[in-house]
Amino acid sequence: MKTSLDCIPCLLRQTLEAARLVSTDTTMHEQVLRSVLFWTGEMDLSQSPPAMAQRIHRRLREVSGVDDPYREAKNRWNHLAMELLPALKDQIESSNDPLLMAARLAITGNIIDMGISANLTESNVRQAVEQAMIAPFFGEEDLFREAVARAKSILYLADNAGEIAFDRLLIEQLSPERVTLVVRGAPVINDATLIDARAVGLDKIVEVIDNGSDAPGTILDDCHQEFRHRFATSDMIIAKGQGNFETLSNEPGNLFFLFKVKCPLTAVHVNRPLGMQMLMKSKLGGTL
Amino acid sequence: MKTSLDCIPCLLRQTLEAARLVSTDTTMHEQVLRSVLFWTGEMDLSQSPPAMAQRIHRRLREVSGVDDPYREAKNRWNHLAMELLPALKDQIESSNDPLLMAARLAITGNIIDMGISANLTESNVRQAVEQAMIAPFFGEEDLFREAVARAKSILYLADNAGEIAFDRLLIEQLSPERVTLVVRGAPVINDATLIDARAVGLDKIVEVIDNGSDAPGTILDDCHQEFRHRFATSDMIIAKGQGNFETLSNEPGNLFFLFKVKCPLTAVHVNRPLGMQMLMKSKLGGTL
Repeated sequence: MKTSLDCIPCLLRQTLEAARLVSTDTTMHEQVLRSVLFWTGEMDLSQSPPAMAQRIHRRLREVSGVDDPYREAKNRWNHLAMELLPALKDQIESSNDPLLMAARLAITGNIIDMGISANLTESNVRQAVEQAMIAPFFGEEDLFREAVARAKSILYLADNAGEIAFDRLLIEQLSPERVTLVVRGAPVINDATLIDARAVGLDKIVEVIDNGSDAPGTILDDCHQEFRHRFATSDMIIAKGQGNFETLSNEPGNLFFLFKVKCPLTAVHVNRPLGMQMLMKSKLGGTL
Repeated sequence: MKTSLDCIPCLLRQTLEAARLVSTDTTMHEQVLRSVLFWTGEMDLSQSPPAMAQRIHRRLREVSGVDDPYREAKNRWNHLAMELLPALKDQIESSNDPLLMAARLAITGNIIDMGISANLTESNVRQAVEQAMIAPFFGEEDLFREAVARAKSILYLADNAGEIAFDRLLIEQLSPERVTLVVRGAPVINDATLIDARAVGLDKIVEVIDNGSDAPGTILDDCHQEFRHRFATSDMIIAKGQGNFETLSNEPGNLFFLFKVKCPLTAVHVNRPLGMQMLMKSKLGGTL
């Protein structure tokens, strides 16, 4: 997805929210906001929104001098999600359709996105989990089920800390031995890195690699060779979150996007309302 | 009021909304938005938000080649407001407190502000009018009543087209012979100019002058000498709308602000919730 003009006010709002989260120094907030105003003023709009977010969050880390400003928040979200897990596992095990139920819970976990709002609360997450199975849902579950049945190798692109515990529920349904989990190569917003994969025990059940990039999405050119090779050769790719959708929706491959529609432009792009939980096959997707 | 960092994403959103309202040319939208990104990047934040809005709307008029892009909308709002007037006059005449009722209706009319949202509908306005007397209200009506009783000359600073018809209701209660109505010196957003004062017949009952400026507020340094003289010498000044509040809240004078709180920063500034209808005396205000 290209960056729309509507993304720009939103990126600036996010910049300010993030700056306030990483520091209380108002001079720093102003300094970062002014940098972003100049960058967006000359931005190449054919880039996806996560490319600008990557640049913004690099700047925030540089100016604040903190390598991983969301670390504490990420720990908190992982902890909360792990608390919720046993009850959710029970729900999945007693379900008629454990694969779909796990997928829907994994999508529900996508609410834990501090790029969209730095003010997300525990109660927002608990409420989303309670409503997981009644929330508006667009699912190409038959295509998904079929791809899962056929794939020998599945590349699972994680999105956020906290959410990654919900991903574990789905990965457990996928026969973990064929799954490789991919996390970001370095901290950006509350996106999951290796620390988070370990925090929710995913390193114990699947191979975990990082993609070498600090973009809050998957910008292939910015990822290291090993990841790009896996991306090109895996039988099936499951990409979590709107950032991965925004950066990969124009890539060919047997790709499935699992995310919550969080912005009006993505809503238009997928032709579904805001808030919709999506399980969709890439329009450019091949089959096995 | 100074410009806050939070104003910047909002000014950019408004720029885009306004650009789309004045033209369907997306290249033009991008061009204007990029200009505003550069300006806000180097903006002096000690200026009030209407100073940047003035610059943005000048640019929109220049790039679109349309002198008064909101003219049609302004005519429509004037027309709607004039339709509502007879019933509102009856309400005032049968009221126990016609002055306060007229003031509250004048504040209600402040909803007709296309700077805040270009998507305001007729039904929003009709609903606001129906709820005018039950809407949350902060009123220093005793101070207001007293000032009205004493003043020999009242300068009434109008805000928007449409709203100016509601102002007529209040002006009729003020003994019009001592009132001078002030409108903007040139078109900006849907702010009222001489055309609008005439459209609602105010030129028939009071002296009408313009302030010489195209800012969506009252930036004294930008107004012509005649207006500044009137501002300095009038016994009482009634300033309508948030733009006038933002630009005049630090000016001394026997000033009363009548407006609806439309942004979270103004809400903090006046220590009242968003949506509140305000009738407040300037904190720097003198008395007669």
